[in-house]
Amino acid sequence: MSDKIETRLFVSTDLAAGATVGLETGQTHYLKHVLRLGPGARVALFNGRDGEWIAEIDGIGKGWTSLTLKAQRRPQRAEPDIWLVFAPIKRARIDFTAQKATELGASVLWPVFTERTMVERVNTDRLLANATEAAEQTARLSVPEIRDPMRFEALLEAWPTERPLIVCDETGAGTPIAHVLSEPPFKGGTPCGLLIGPEGGFADRELDRLRQSSFVTPVSLGPRLLRSDTAALAALACWQAVAGDWTMERPDGLDL
Amino acid sequence: MSDKIETRLFVSTDLAAGATVGLETGQTHYLKHVLRLGPGARVALFNGRDGEWIAEIDGIGKGWTSLTLKAQRRPQRAEPDIWLVFAPIKRARIDFTAQKATELGASVLWPVFTERTMVERVNTDRLLANATEAAEQTARLSVPEIRDPMRFEALLEAWPTERPLIVCDETGAGTPIAHVLSEPPFKGGTPCGLLIGPEGGFADRELDRLRQSSFVTPVSLGPRLLRSDTAALAALACWQAVAGDWTMERPDGLDL
Repeated sequence: MSDKIETRLFVSTDLAAGATVGLETGQTHYLKHVLRLGPGARVALFNGRDGEWIAEIDGIGKGWTSLTLKAQRRPQRAEPDIWLVFAPIKRARIDFTAQKATELGASVLWPVFTERTMVERVNTDRLLANATEAAEQTARLSVPEIRDPMRFEALLEAWPTERPLIVCDETGAGTPIAHVLSEPPFKGGTPCGLLIGPEGGFADRELDRLRQSSFVTPVSLGPRLLRSDTAALAALACWQAVAGDWTMERPDGLDL
Repeated sequence: MSDKIETRLFVSTDLAAGATVGLETGQTHYLKHVLRLGPGARVALFNGRDGEWIAEIDGIGKGWTSLTLKAQRRPQRAEPDIWLVFAPIKRARIDFTAQKATELGASVLWPVFTERTMVERVNTDRLLANATEAAEQTARLSVPEIRDPMRFEALLEAWPTERPLIVCDETGAGTPIAHVLSEPPFKGGTPCGLLIGPEGGFADRELDRLRQSSFVTPVSLGPRLLRSDTAALAALACWQAVAGDWTMERPDGLDL
């Protein structure tokens, strides 16, 4: 038995001292055949609710792993409530968006089909797999919720109007993003959303619809044209830095 | 002859009304065989000094294109002076870093080899190609300068000490980035640098060396662990939003 923590895994079951946890086929394959772990090896588990736990493998077989929880390694902590709503893009860059948005602390990833969105389907399982892997690899204690894609109009109809929505307006008509984020209602990390349009931009009628929505604040991301994946990550980073939890010191050790 | 601008290309020659410009083999191949353009077609050219010009193809042959400059489309404007110094990472993610950093307005890309950097060589031609393509595609009026890679110690020796260097300190010991950027000397876009460490972090002696350097300011990028490419882009976006040119309204039309 070693004290080394071999990897971090996201699980859905409750985590508490002494509990036994089973893993499914995919994670078992990873532990057994990729990392070549056996009984006695230790991994860290997190579920987005109960913090991070050290777990020891009791047994590992064909498609199953059984572990016992030893001790809590980090407590759960509150995370910013920032939804990223984005027009889906082609495969490599949507994977990338899911990974990076997870590192940057998005709480929800929500694809939206706008008029000029060139992608017609979104594989939400793949989005979740990318988000989960990014959370496991970068010490995050939760995995963003992946919402089912919606059409632009339906999404605005369904939007909770008490939640402000920051729209990255590629026409440059918006207010500089840091100005907006350092003022109410955004200052201090109020739960909100970020909406990023497709590569070709929003259609005029979509922009009109957004500007008429009481919960929308258009922002500008500067004088250079950004690809939509760059805009999503830049806006998220700015939000965390100016309004979110990057305004605080890092609360616990991260030499994982 | 059409009024449509078919593409944007970066060139090194001077640009002025009525001048004739020649393109080399690679760009000719792109115009002739990828875009299938011929005499009369119009493209936009920029060189980082003279703004963006509309140019009409006069002739296109085997390995050469001749164009005449018609009119300036956008004037050159001052761009932020922000150097990105980063530990190189493996191929797909270093390409990505060069592209995204170009969109986010880095003026210099400078690879640095730290103790824990896992990559031993950097293809600077490839970095430049990625930066150039990103500048062409996203309406930027310049291409970042690509510096030759240096070892960590040599880079700190060579660093112009009057230029502040913001170090993204993954130990969490730094001050929150938006706090630092909204105060002197950074506020208002003072020329400076951003240093991002490798995936494994800086070695202890490297951190000591940085903390002893008068020009270094350590900053924190929040409580979640970021991959180094994510950290580079997040820090650049924060710099532009809080201290750089994202604090201004967009100065000219960008429907390119």
